[in-house]
Amino acid sequence: MHMIPVETDIMAANQHWADDNREAFIRHDVYTVNLMSAPGAGKTSVLEKTIEGLREDYRLGVIEGDLVTTIDADRIAALGVPAYQITTGTICHLEARMVHNAIHKFGIEDLDVLFIENVGNLVCPAEFVLGEDLKIMVYSTVEGAEKPKKYPLMFHEAEAVILNKIDLLPYSGVSLEELTRNVREVNPYAPIFPVSCRTGEGLPNWIGWLRAQISGEKGRRKLRSAVGA
Amino acid sequence: MHMIPVETDIMAANQHWADDNREAFIRHDVYTVNLMSAPGAGKTSVLEKTIEGLREDYRLGVIEGDLVTTIDADRIAALGVPAYQITTGTICHLEARMVHNAIHKFGIEDLDVLFIENVGNLVCPAEFVLGEDLKIMVYSTVEGAEKPKKYPLMFHEAEAVILNKIDLLPYSGVSLEELTRNVREVNPYAPIFPVSCRTGEGLPNWIGWLRAQISGEKGRRKLRSAVGA
Repeated sequence: MHMIPVETDIMAANQHWADDNREAFIRHDVYTVNLMSAPGAGKTSVLEKTIEGLREDYRLGVIEGDLVTTIDADRIAALGVPAYQITTGTICHLEARMVHNAIHKFGIEDLDVLFIENVGNLVCPAEFVLGEDLKIMVYSTVEGAEKPKKYPLMFHEAEAVILNKIDLLPYSGVSLEELTRNVREVNPYAPIFPVSCRTGEGLPNWIGWLRAQISGEKGRRKLRSAVGA
Repeated sequence: MHMIPVETDIMAANQHWADDNREAFIRHDVYTVNLMSAPGAGKTSVLEKTIEGLREDYRLGVIEGDLVTTIDADRIAALGVPAYQITTGTICHLEARMVHNAIHKFGIEDLDVLFIENVGNLVCPAEFVLGEDLKIMVYSTVEGAEKPKKYPLMFHEAEAVILNKIDLLPYSGVSLEELTRNVREVNPYAPIFPVSCRTGEGLPNWIGWLRAQISGEKGRRKLRSAVGA
């Protein structure tokens, strides 16, 4: 959409709603993951696989962000996981206020982990915090090795980068080594998970790491709550 | 970016600059093509192939839109074609005013055909006219068959849809038939060109069609100018 002088106000308002969400997530002990990517990178596929890997141990919920249609929420609901669709109309990212409205319709008190699948866009979603615990970026290796240089903000903001569709690497002419190097240039620290949702390769690494983040944070919350902090 | 009440003013201002660009393009008889797509769909690759196909007959120029970096402009300049890079910072689309500034630095009077490669984004570029003759959308078939439903505006606005990376279809599990059907649902009329920039398949169809558009419009302009219209 449009870059305008009132941006500071918009960002301040977004932060306010994000803080409110965060408070609710902590109060109900919901661990929240914001999934961002360009269109077609495979966020929903990664989410399906991640749900399979976690559903035995956690009560999961999903908020889907899209311009129109409930295709993604339908895919998640088909797995028997509660899914709420936010349709943004023409807005190319989720804002904290939209998530705020959604969680009040959703019943987050019955969840352990909430996934928020953002609108497919490599630019704007990275600018809007939602109150989440974790920002994850899914990138399709087929999109080329140079994109971290061209869209640095999302690669920089991500706390883990999932490089999807590695089964297509032999046919796409993209070098995983070069891509990884370019991710590292804008984000030296985040773990990088090369995966294929088609073959399953690499997914256990990602899901194992995510499990550790969830249980670590939930443990810290319990501790803080026990000492009254 | 941000959906805000002053949108109408922004769109009106954009239309004003677009009209101004259009007037300049017609005055100098420059045929202008606006290339839009998600990040990594292959706009620059399609452009390189299209340049190869047209450069014997037309004087070409390219305006590149990106958030940061001159990677794409450098690729075009390497072909010996004049290229001007617009870096938008955080703005996720080109606006007519940016193109207006660029064409005045560029010397469009020496061009027959100008390509404008928009910022990689499947949402916002479709909302901003630039004064172009033709809006083209490049879509990577690897991104999935359902995207025309989820991002209908750009598919709807495009006057031709290039379905790129068809060499990866056998490995990606995406059905070209289903994708084509979904494009047709939001855009019944635009020609659809399945192509592969890696193998060259389909590119002659696209380039042949584009040639016909260019010579047709240039013919009409000559006629109008001859009758003083």
